Formats: sequence, C-alpha cells, structure tokens
Amino acid sequence: VQKQNLSELQHFLDQLHPADIAVILEALPMEDRLLIWSMVKTDRDGEVLLETSDAVRETLITDMGNHELVAATEYLDADEIADLAPDLPQEVMDDVFRSLPVEEREQLRAAMSYPEDSVGALMDFDVITIREDVRMEVVLRYLRMLEEMPDHTDQLFVVDRNEQLKGVLLINRLLVSDPDTLVADVMTNEMIKLHPDDVAQQAANAFERYDLVSASVVDDNDKLLGRVTVNTVIDFIRDKAENDALNLAGLSEEEDLFAPVLKSVQNRWVWLAVNLVTAFIASRVIGLFEDSIEKLVALAALMPIIAGIGGNSGNQTITMIVRALALDQINTSSAWKLITKEVGVSIVNGLLWGTIVGLFTFAIYQNAELGLVMTLALVLNLLLAALLGVLIPLTLRKFGRDPAIGSSVMITAVTDSGGFFIFLGLATVFLL
Amino acid sequence: VQKQNLSELQHFLDQLHPADIAVILEALPMEDRLLIWSMVKTDRDGEVLLETSDAVRETLITDMGNHELVAATEYLDADEIADLAPDLPQEVMDDVFRSLPVEEREQLRAAMSYPEDSVGALMDFDVITIREDVRMEVVLRYLRMLEEMPDHTDQLFVVDRNEQLKGVLLINRLLVSDPDTLVADVMTNEMIKLHPDDVAQQAANAFERYDLVSASVVDDNDKLLGRVTVNTVIDFIRDKAENDALNLAGLSEEEDLFAPVLKSVQNRWVWLAVNLVTAFIASRVIGLFEDSIEKLVALAALMPIIAGIGGNSGNQTITMIVRALALDQINTSSAWKLITKEVGVSIVNGLLWGTIVGLFTFAIYQNAELGLVMTLALVLNLLLAALLGVLIPLTLRKFGRDPAIGSSVMITAVTDSGGFFIFLGLATVFLL
Repeated sequence: VQKQNLSELQHFLDQLHPADIAVILEALPMEDRLLIWSMVKTDRDGEVLLETSDAVRETLITDMGNHELVAATEYLDADEIADLAPDLPQEVMDDVFRSLPVEEREQLRAAMSYPEDSVGALMDFDVITIREDVRMEVVLRYLRMLEEMPDHTDQLFVVDRNEQLKGVLLINRLLVSDPDTLVADVMTNEMIKLHPDDVAQQAANAFERYDLVSASVVDDNDKLLGRVTVNTVIDFIRDKAENDALNLAGLSEEEDLFAPVLKSVQNRWVWLAVNLVTAFIASRVIGLFEDSIEKLVALAALMPIIAGIGGNSGNQTITMIVRALALDQINTSSAWKLITKEVGVSIVNGLLWGTIVGLFTFAIYQNAELGLVMTLALVLNLLLAALLGVLIPLTLRKFGRDPAIGSSVMITAVTDSGGFFIFLGLATVFLL
Repeated sequence: VQKQNLSELQHFLDQLHPADIAVILEALPMEDRLLIWSMVKTDRDGEVLLETSDAVRETLITDMGNHELVAATEYLDADEIADLAPDLPQEVMDDVFRSLPVEEREQLRAAMSYPEDSVGALMDFDVITIREDVRMEVVLRYLRMLEEMPDHTDQLFVVDRNEQLKGVLLINRLLVSDPDTLVADVMTNEMIKLHPDDVAQQAANAFERYDLVSASVVDDNDKLLGRVTVNTVIDFIRDKAENDALNLAGLSEEEDLFAPVLKSVQNRWVWLAVNLVTAFIASRVIGLFEDSIEKLVALAALMPIIAGIGGNSGNQTITMIVRALALDQINTSSAWKLITKEVGVSIVNGLLWGTIVGLFTFAIYQNAELGLVMTLALVLNLLLAALLGVLIPLTLRKFGRDPAIGSSVMITAVTDSGGFFIFLGLATVFLL
C-alpha cells in the first residue's frame, strides 16, 4: 500500500508546475521536505531550485551531491545558473563552466559579473533579432523556422551588422501589418533601453509606469546585450517589498519557516542587538531622573505614554517620506514644504492628543499641573518626531544609504529617549 | 518670455507618457500641481487620472468641472472608467452612462459591480476570440484586418458558438506553426481560468508563479467574460505591498505628500487612538506597582528594556507567520511545529539577551538579585512574545480577518503591558 501511495505521489509531483513544487517544499518540515525533494525528477530540479526562497534552497542544495547539482544545471539557461551560483559549491560551478559551450560560458560569466541589485542581474539572453531591410513576410517565415519562441517575446529587436540596436518590432504590429511592408517602416525607435549597470529598481519603475512585457538591455555603444522580462521584474518587486517588511520587523533576511532554532537566532540577532543598545540608552536617560521619580512615582507610570505615541507618530512621518523618496518625489524646495507640513500636523496632533492625555492624567492623579506637563511633553515629543521623521530619511539618502532600512529603528530610539527626557525634564523643572 | 516658457512647458508635457505626468503632479505642491494639470490636454486627462494615487486624484478631480470630467472619460475603456468611478460625482457618472454605446454600458455596469479586491475589479474586456476549426492562415488574415491589437495580447481565446472558452492559442505558437494547421491542433487547454469573484490576491499569485502575461476570466459556465493582464497585476501587487506598509506604520491610507494639515490629521488619527488606548493600559499596569517603584526606583529605568526587546522579538515572529499565512504555508500540524520552534528561539534568545541585560543591570546598580530578575523577566516576556506572535495571526485568520492588519499593534501592546507586569511583578515578589 505504501508503495502504491508513493507511486501516486510521484505521478502527482510529475504533473505539478515547478513553482507549485517549490511552494509545497517551503511548507513542509525538514524531513518531509527532503523526502519530496528526492522524488522530483532531475530535469526539473533546477527549475524548482530557482523558485524556492533562498533559505529553503540552501536546505535542498545541502542535501544534494555535487554530481546531482551539475546535472540539475544542465536544463537551465546561463542567466538562471547565475541566479543559483551564489548558493552552489565552487567545485560544482567549476564543473558547470567546463561543461558549457563557449557562447553560454561567456553569458554565464557576464551574468555572474553584475551586482545583485543591477539590471544585469535581471537580464536574460533570449532575444530574437532581425534586420530592418527585410519584409514582414520574411520575418514571419524566419519565426516559423524556430521550433519555439522564448517566453515573453512581445517584440523582436532590430539590429544592424554590429549588433547595434536600431529599434523594436512589436509582435502586435507584426501581426496586423501587410506582409509586403519593410521592418524599417513598422518598427519603432521609441523604446526603453536599459543598461546592465542601472539599478534594478529603475527597471522595475519603468515596467510599472509603461506597462512593459520586455525591455532591451544595451551597452554604452547601444550594442544589444539581452533583455529583461516582466516575470523577472515581478519577482524583483515582490522580493523587495518582502525584504523591506522583514527589515522593518527586525529580520535580516527571509527565514525558512522550519529553520533549526539556532539558525533563526542567527537571523534575528542583529536587530535585537541594535534594539538592546537603544533600550539601554533610554534606560540611562530615565536613570538621570531617578530622584524625580522617587519623589513623584506617577511619572514612571506616565512616561511610556509620551514615548509610545511619539514613536507611532514618527513612524507615520517616516513611512510617508521613505515612500516619496523611493518615487523620487522630493527635492530641496519641497523638503522645506514637507517639514512645515509635518510640523503643522504634529502641533495639531499634539494639542489634540495632548489634551486627552492631560485629562486622563488629571482623572487618575487629581493633579492639574501633572496633566499640563503631560500635554506639553506630548506636543514637544510629536514635534521632535515630525522633524526627525523628515530629516532622518533625507539624511540617510544624502549619504547614499537606503532610507527604508533603519529609519524606523532610529526614529523610535529618538522618540523613546527623547520622550523620556522631555517629559521627566519638564516634570523636574515645573513640579518638583 | 513667460509666454514662451509656458509654450515650451506645454510642448514638453505633450510628449510625456501619462504615467510620467502623474509622477510629476504627485511631486508638486498644490498650486503648481493645478497649473500643470490645467495644461494637460483633455484627451489625456483620463489616462493621467488613472495613473495617480487616490489622494492626488481627488485633488485633481475637485479642480475639474463636470463637463470636463465627462469629456475625460470619453477616451477610456469601460474597465478604466470603472476604476475612476468611486471618485467621480454621481451626476458625472449618470452623464457617462448616457453617452456610452449599449455594449460598453453593460461592461461598465459589470465592472462596477465587482468588489474592490476581486478578480472582476482587475479585469478588462479587450479579448480577441477565434474558433477552433479554422486554419492558422485564417487567424493571421483575421488579425491583419484589425487596425491594432490590444496591449498584452500574448494569447487568443478559442471559444465556441456560446462564447464558452475551449482553449487558448498562444501568439508564440501561432507564429511558429505551419499556416495550414488547424487552431484545434495547436491550441492548448492547459490554461488558467480565473473567476470574477475570486480574490484578486489569488490571481496575483497565479501570475507570479506561472509567469503569465494575461489570463482568461470566465463565469461558472466557462463563458469568457474578459481577461486580466500582467500590468494590472503589477499595480495590484505594488498597491497591496504599499497598503500593508502604510497600515503597519499606522496610516489608514496613502496620503498626498502635500495634503493640507487637517486632512493628514484625519488620515492618521485612527492608529494614534489605538496606540493611545494601549499606552493607557500599559500605564495602568505600571500604576499597579507604584509602591514597588517608590521603594526601588531603578525598576522605572529598567522596565522599558524588557518591554522594548519583547516587542521587537514578537514582531519578528509575527512577520514570519503573516508571510507564511499569505503564502498558504501553514496547516494545523505545522502550526504546532511552529509554536515549538518559536518557543525554542525565544528561550535561546531569552537566555542570551537576558544574560547581557542582567550583567548590564548588575554593572549599573551593583545589585545581583535585580540582575537575575531582569534575566528571568526577559526570558518570560520573550516566551509570551513567541506564543502570541504565532497565535495572534492564526486567530485573526481563523476569524476571517487579514492577519497583516493589526497584528503588529496587538503584539506590541501585549509585550508592553505584559512585559511591565512580568518584570514589576517578579521584582515585587523577589526583591521587596
């Protein structure tokens, strides 16, 4: 019976799309995962590895012999092998290089040479090129000679003898044009040309804005190198969004759901350590005012309110600004407008919530002056949050850092320590 | 001179892609924005409105007369008008309905009837249909009779007399096939069929997994209703990621960078109010232990450390679980495995960071028992964070809520109040 089940399972797996197999593998605890993985046919191993998350891919590769790994790459294109390369042992890559025909070897070398977040890393080499002096009919006949066309071919690239890109012939235009017209009369030279060293995010923005399916990649002399397709761009957008979310939550990278405990601890320690340092600082700020707290212990109970709301408000500002920076919507003159606006919002919010907080304080402690200090402290901490909520991301950007990473931790640290200082300081001056 | 500049600006605007105009409008303060907007030609108004964010779109529509708005929709497809409809005044929509030909009127009615996050809302009606009993040559001739093909046409839909979907003919296959073969012999019936009531996220997952450019939308009887294309899916993915990020930061929705102060206050108040309530609760928890703090004021300075690290750790767990839920990777049996794993991670982290925190405490206050209480409190708060970090999203999901919304606020509330209670409680029992 067991045997029959296994053969049914095998049959089921053989019918699945590699992406579906990847999802199943990611959802399985380690033991079951490796059992299923051993049942995936060699000719699909490579495609499945491409679809899995980095963390899960690592567990699968660790389970495979070098020979198996080389065999798995045989069914992949050069740009796909390059995507796996960072996870493969050096010996495997050496074998892969030796086994490739010259042209693909050069492509692989090129693909591996581009940095991770560049257009080059998103590029593939599956381009169909034509000449501008032929008729549509010849193009159609040429295509018919191909056994199949690369996925996501929505345009043919028109090049000259030196492989310089002259224009593109959209498949949609090819299909509706008279067979006797020349490529030169139907092609367009209004097209997106990406460069392999461009930042990948720029390519993603272009795909989003102009609704592209594919775009050419050329070198500085307009020589056609390859193309980027929308499926790669979707993966990039999703990965980027996911990484931002992970970083915001204090995870260094995507984590295998069933990673061993120690592996998870490793993935999480950096942000916890940063958090610990900022918490220690906040703690020492409070320590400065221990005398005041001893005299009026209500301060200890009230101070987290000031810090917490400041943090929340600061993160609202940061999120707006980081998003606007990603979309290139901020310049020097608008930066001032933004600061003015955020300061305005913080004053209104400060008076509004400050009043509520003040009343709450008065209701509990029957101390009007304490209530007023709460109100004032909240206004000031929200002001601080607004100012630094604009300035922190702008400064990170100025120094060439990604404002999406670390901004949130920094603003929270400022509004915590700052909030404690403002509130306890005001209380010490006015109440004691 | 002024006049000449304006005419140059006009020329520049006329050459820009509508998406680029939208980006420029979003980056401009209100006055400049409306000036530029008045210079955009009527026939492009609709397309630009489609590309802007909701908040900015509102400012542009407010600036337009009803007549202008109706004129702007004349250049749009039914599905595009439906996207704008929620922002248009009722009278404008009435006029638009009256001005449409019958078929488009029906399409618009259909498009407006689907809920916002459904496949129907992503659908367009630009499908090319063919019959299965014709030869490739006939298909090519039929296409040539069209002046142009809809964007993102990577497949033709094969339907029978009743508009039932029988299969799809990929353009890539059409181009490489012999002109004499029949559609029936080249088409495939392995295809994605979406339903208009499906959740949009499902369609997005299918596009990501199977690298689609377009997919059919059919009703329960397999009748072809329309299609979804990859550009719409990219916009959906980006909006979803953005909204999750905004919610996480406590913004209800996308905000116009240059929104008036009071409008911004409105957009931000909900989460600040939630935050205020949780802060009041935390404050009252501390209030319970005012006697203890009065006796040992160091407690006040140390308690934010326990709460802060607990919050960070809980958010790490939440992020993992929310992501896994979105990818459908968690079932009942793996939920237990996950709790075990997270508890394991929290114990290791608790001992590791607890020791550091304990030593820090001892170094500052020269009080070994206080150090031990800190260590124990951190272990317990991290345990609490791990348990609830798994249980909160699973519970939200069980009750049909989106676990991405609110999970983070809830875990932080728990680790704050819980952390204060655990730490001050332990201190009261063991130290006083």
